[in-house]
Amino acid sequence: MLSKKYRDMLSARSVIRSLSEYAAARGKQIGYENVFDYSLGNPSVDVPKSYTDTLIRLLREENPMTLHGYSPTLTIPAVREAVAHNLNRRFGMNYQKEHIFMVSGAAAAIAHAVRLVAEPGDEIITFAPFFPEYHPYVDLSGARLKVVPAHTQDFQIHFEALDAAMNEKVSAVLINTPNNPSGVVYSEVTLKRLSSYLRDKEREYGHEIYLISDEPYREIVFDGMTAPYPANYYEKTITCYSWSKSLSVPGDRIGYVAVHPDCPGAELMIPMCGQISRGIGHNCPTAMVQLAVAENLDVTADMEVYETNRNLLYDELIKLGFTLVRPVGTFYIFPKALEEDAAAFCEKAKKYDLILVPGDSFGCPGHFRMAYCIDTEKVKRSIPALRRFVQEEYGDARL
Amino acid sequence: MLSKKYRDMLSARSVIRSLSEYAAARGKQIGYENVFDYSLGNPSVDVPKSYTDTLIRLLREENPMTLHGYSPTLTIPAVREAVAHNLNRRFGMNYQKEHIFMVSGAAAAIAHAVRLVAEPGDEIITFAPFFPEYHPYVDLSGARLKVVPAHTQDFQIHFEALDAAMNEKVSAVLINTPNNPSGVVYSEVTLKRLSSYLRDKEREYGHEIYLISDEPYREIVFDGMTAPYPANYYEKTITCYSWSKSLSVPGDRIGYVAVHPDCPGAELMIPMCGQISRGIGHNCPTAMVQLAVAENLDVTADMEVYETNRNLLYDELIKLGFTLVRPVGTFYIFPKALEEDAAAFCEKAKKYDLILVPGDSFGCPGHFRMAYCIDTEKVKRSIPALRRFVQEEYGDARL
Repeated sequence: MLSKKYRDMLSARSVIRSLSEYAAARGKQIGYENVFDYSLGNPSVDVPKSYTDTLIRLLREENPMTLHGYSPTLTIPAVREAVAHNLNRRFGMNYQKEHIFMVSGAAAAIAHAVRLVAEPGDEIITFAPFFPEYHPYVDLSGARLKVVPAHTQDFQIHFEALDAAMNEKVSAVLINTPNNPSGVVYSEVTLKRLSSYLRDKEREYGHEIYLISDEPYREIVFDGMTAPYPANYYEKTITCYSWSKSLSVPGDRIGYVAVHPDCPGAELMIPMCGQISRGIGHNCPTAMVQLAVAENLDVTADMEVYETNRNLLYDELIKLGFTLVRPVGTFYIFPKALEEDAAAFCEKAKKYDLILVPGDSFGCPGHFRMAYCIDTEKVKRSIPALRRFVQEEYGDARL
Repeated sequence: MLSKKYRDMLSARSVIRSLSEYAAARGKQIGYENVFDYSLGNPSVDVPKSYTDTLIRLLREENPMTLHGYSPTLTIPAVREAVAHNLNRRFGMNYQKEHIFMVSGAAAAIAHAVRLVAEPGDEIITFAPFFPEYHPYVDLSGARLKVVPAHTQDFQIHFEALDAAMNEKVSAVLINTPNNPSGVVYSEVTLKRLSSYLRDKEREYGHEIYLISDEPYREIVFDGMTAPYPANYYEKTITCYSWSKSLSVPGDRIGYVAVHPDCPGAELMIPMCGQISRGIGHNCPTAMVQLAVAENLDVTADMEVYETNRNLLYDELIKLGFTLVRPVGTFYIFPKALEEDAAAFCEKAKKYDLILVPGDSFGCPGHFRMAYCIDTEKVKRSIPALRRFVQEEYGDARL
């Protein structure tokens, strides 16, 4: 009498998780420093000192009822207000605290967003390559994730494929920019075209189509660029954020849902998040963590290491003859494999202690992901292994 | 196109929350110190110094990847192991870390437990008086909460009423001992009878019936007693715990699910919690909080104040002629109102700035709850108000 749905899920092992466990086991044999583990998107840079200092000060000085007491149902008002002001200043928005709901990370943000707008049986569209956890996030809510194939030339949106997938049952489109695993940022052109397409479809179907924008990598962009803010282009946007990457604190479980002030029903949506929270047992992120991020809204960890790693890997992969789109953000790179079967390609890479993830689980077969949120020193040491791998396994075919 | 289910919930206001807001508003008029606010179960005692010290030390000295990195899917192994050992020592159990799953509080624990054992449409039985949040916790999972009327003489289980409610669709029974709102602890006799009754019904129906035991008040018991541990009496017990009350840290969002080692399928149940977590966006409680509680498993806040308050209120209520069961734990007391309509009774009490909660939302009309997790000094000051209230409103009727 244990739930069949969740019992059945146990047999489906996560490929990323399996590879990461393989890397750990291999590390026990040869020393983890000798395993070039590009499997997991676990940020490795230091937590900003000001964030740690804030937490210590709060623990020492703040009233215990404020620091450790229940948050109000809709989370801490002063924190919501601080987040709204920060977004307004940075992105020219007009949020008030009534549009912000603090959550325990991006997974929780998406859990709330999906339940806000989708009835059971509704479809939510996302674009390959996509973060594989979107499947449980959406499918276990009762809605259904529908994946639009990738536009592999540039990993922007494949609009013809979107049009083929679109139908009346679609209540939301879920995007992730900067994107895991491609490292690409959706351009203004892409976001404008998406927004105009969705407005057309809303008119055609006579109902809203929401945009759920998952943005945990928003601050990790390179070459001095700023990622366009999707809510600037579409008023039915529900922005899902996590500080996991920008402050390098994934274990702290902190993020927010921000509802566009011009979204129809915006005034209901955050109170509805409070109701959703009761049903999924969320009931507010840790209060001291809410208070600490509110004092560090303009702080990020030092993310230059990711840009350095991107440069090293991109240049080397190009030299080795890989086909790939140059990442402009995140800490992922997503080249085409050197044979059609990316799983076979990644399996062979293991011989060289290179842990690469096949693109199949990201909805983009024939590619592979490297998560380069690791020490630059290790990236450098991995390059000879990468060269040997390519030459020994694919050298002849490439001459 | 916003979700109808959650939109409809907005119109149903929580009675407790409304009263608490009334108390806050009244406090702005006359000073909150003059409002005898017995509405909310928000612990008021100090957080133990050792817990705060642990957090500060971790923030200063612990490796940032350990402190702020992602927890493993099934939460931090060393923490799970410490919890298992602690429960084994205290309750003669045989848990291993494989039976423990850390969660962000009791709401999250119940969200996981319900999804573990109930398919949509299944029934979960609970006993009045009960915590009203059980309704969203259960009903929004797709199962249905069925409430068995109270045995008002002693607030133990009403077994005849249980038998009338029991049927083949029941997949679990949800108990809460020490109980909110009655303050009663289920006796060994009650737990043995329940366990034997459930085993009979399992044989009759040919399927398991699980016991979900919600125990956030386990450590708040008076007169030197220890609350019987329900898992000692029934092997299909899923224990749900939160440190909110015992460490006085409800804002920290930390608790656990413990599956009885002899429960059939026990080896699957914690991995299944990991899957449920993905679907509800839970994904582990804050890592530093997991680490901090693991070092404070034998620590509690100083909870003597609750016993002092219980004594003051119980003695006074008895003197004033109330009918009530003496609480032996928690920080609630649940007397019979002085008129049939407890809502009318509590409305009249407001004139004396006494904020009492009618028993109707706890499934027990005609009673009212006082949450006495407030300063003893305020309890003392509330007694003249209580006397005036009873004499002026009900004096004649009682002579």
